[in-house]
Amino acid sequence: MVEDNKLFAVIIAGGRGTRFWPLSRNTRPKHLLAISGGLPLLRQTVDRILPLVGPERVLVVTTNDQAGEVKSLLADVPPGNILVEPAGKNTAPAIALAAAHVLDRAEDAVMAVLPADHIVSPDGNFLSDLRDGAELARASGRFVTLGVRPTRPETGYGYIEVGEKLGKKAFAVASFTEKPNRKKARDYIGAGRYLWNSGMFLFPARRLMEKIKTHVPALYSGWETYRSGGRTREDVEKFYSGLEPVSIDFAIMEKCAADSAVLNASFDWSDVGSWEAIDELWGADAAGNRSNDCVVVSLASKGNTVVSRKLVALLGVENLIVVETNDAILVCAKDRAQEIKSLVGEMERRGLDKYL
Amino acid sequence: MVEDNKLFAVIIAGGRGTRFWPLSRNTRPKHLLAISGGLPLLRQTVDRILPLVGPERVLVVTTNDQAGEVKSLLADVPPGNILVEPAGKNTAPAIALAAAHVLDRAEDAVMAVLPADHIVSPDGNFLSDLRDGAELARASGRFVTLGVRPTRPETGYGYIEVGEKLGKKAFAVASFTEKPNRKKARDYIGAGRYLWNSGMFLFPARRLMEKIKTHVPALYSGWETYRSGGRTREDVEKFYSGLEPVSIDFAIMEKCAADSAVLNASFDWSDVGSWEAIDELWGADAAGNRSNDCVVVSLASKGNTVVSRKLVALLGVENLIVVETNDAILVCAKDRAQEIKSLVGEMERRGLDKYL
Repeated sequence: MVEDNKLFAVIIAGGRGTRFWPLSRNTRPKHLLAISGGLPLLRQTVDRILPLVGPERVLVVTTNDQAGEVKSLLADVPPGNILVEPAGKNTAPAIALAAAHVLDRAEDAVMAVLPADHIVSPDGNFLSDLRDGAELARASGRFVTLGVRPTRPETGYGYIEVGEKLGKKAFAVASFTEKPNRKKARDYIGAGRYLWNSGMFLFPARRLMEKIKTHVPALYSGWETYRSGGRTREDVEKFYSGLEPVSIDFAIMEKCAADSAVLNASFDWSDVGSWEAIDELWGADAAGNRSNDCVVVSLASKGNTVVSRKLVALLGVENLIVVETNDAILVCAKDRAQEIKSLVGEMERRGLDKYL
Repeated sequence: MVEDNKLFAVIIAGGRGTRFWPLSRNTRPKHLLAISGGLPLLRQTVDRILPLVGPERVLVVTTNDQAGEVKSLLADVPPGNILVEPAGKNTAPAIALAAAHVLDRAEDAVMAVLPADHIVSPDGNFLSDLRDGAELARASGRFVTLGVRPTRPETGYGYIEVGEKLGKKAFAVASFTEKPNRKKARDYIGAGRYLWNSGMFLFPARRLMEKIKTHVPALYSGWETYRSGGRTREDVEKFYSGLEPVSIDFAIMEKCAADSAVLNASFDWSDVGSWEAIDELWGADAAGNRSNDCVVVSLASKGNTVVSRKLVALLGVENLIVVETNDAILVCAKDRAQEIKSLVGEMERRGLDKYL
């Protein structure tokens, strides 16, 4: 694959990751975990795009308390490309921040915005879709979302209604939708013309900032000041201090459906957004138990998922998540895994912050 | 309390303790664990009797692979009093081995045979019963069993049918019974004249050996040879090499009911024989969860028992046993805890001996 010198990757590597506590911690969100594939998801995300986007055109937006680990994990990425947010303000400010740095390098750049903690395969299909998406974005000026064919009536994702065909795998966007309820999600699946919004976008950088100027003028004006400054830590702090948190989906995509396109992705995708998603990635043994390759001995036990460095013995238990880390153990019924956030909240209330 | 210079304590500290795996291991059976009371049960057993039996009259029968830890735990007991069996042969040979050493010291000695891993309280009641039992044994020549008033139709214990009254809390023995089935156990409770066999006995040592001569002549003849020898390791090995394993209950007690007495114990007693027994010893929190004082954070979880050095978080789980040790974690449904032995068997089959 030939590198695209006007294509920049903007990897969004923030978040706290309470969902996978105690694996994920305040300073170790999901993208720093080797959940599948042997390496931290962020490292895999960077490795995957390097054939198309050299390390000097990889930008990572992260937070203060993760920056150290991110820099040491991505030693091949120039340190100046690791952009540190003073505070998380959701995706729109993060992307705008990166756009300032991208536009320094090429006014006609296309930005591939990629979450740091998704899993896709095979890499070849992903890269070819990314290249096609970048070409479409550059040629048409449209904002291109990579859309994934839904496999279940998921209520945790946004959906994209596909419009007229623009190219081989490319379509206009009829509409972006918010996360649907179960009934709507089933309708979307039945209708056959909806794709999951993967959160992976291709933006002509200049054009994105024009739309931000129109739809989020406060963000734009702060950004303009930042752009004309010296790119110091103080400049970023000043830029971020007045910002409202807002997602790129809400701020821009849902308002710019007419200026958007969706590319029907040819790769398998997981946002690894739940323990259910991890179960889909990990092979099960004959009894339906899964683990991170630790030794599991089970008797009359099925459907459990285990993460440990020790031997784990299961006796007469079903559908549990068992996680062992340096300082904590979680034993959780799978159908209650959504409430791990409440458990983390309970620990905060009890002053057990050192475990978070 | 005044010491009884003709009373010797013989503490039986063997066994493998698979029931409490992974807490208990081949080289760390239950009596070496601090299950309740802060100290290993063996240490508590010795401490408890010291006001009545000085350390020089405490004998401990243990196995090769536990002898090191037993000796360091009982530094106040003369090393020559720690008797090491070459192989476990159940209780009758262990008691006979100790009797040889006891009779060296006093031909008219009484032996208090005590399991190393039971919990009794209060200590004062126990000591006073032990002293009364020793006096009865010495005065009457009977074998005295400490009998515990049953509190449930337990099928795991032997029962003693109480006969004519001999003294304040002492009775003749009408019969010793094997472990009953559930129906029989309920009948015993209903009848009101049965006590649990606590496995704690008081034997006039000389008289015990006479009965062994009658009922287990092979054991006696090996023992006689051992008694006349130099008490070397080779002597013990020779003594044990030809022995059949046999319990004192089966070999002697059940055949000598007419020569026995039972003392209705005034103390609370637990043989800590199951996780259920541990639950009875440990206080529960408001949700009915118990732990070894580790930090437990629970949500929608009740009736769990946790042993760990790490924080343990429970979410949506009930009636589980969760145990964490250096190298292993157990998650077990309480109503399957009897099958931990099978789990250990499965590990043996899989060659996971280093975890046993």
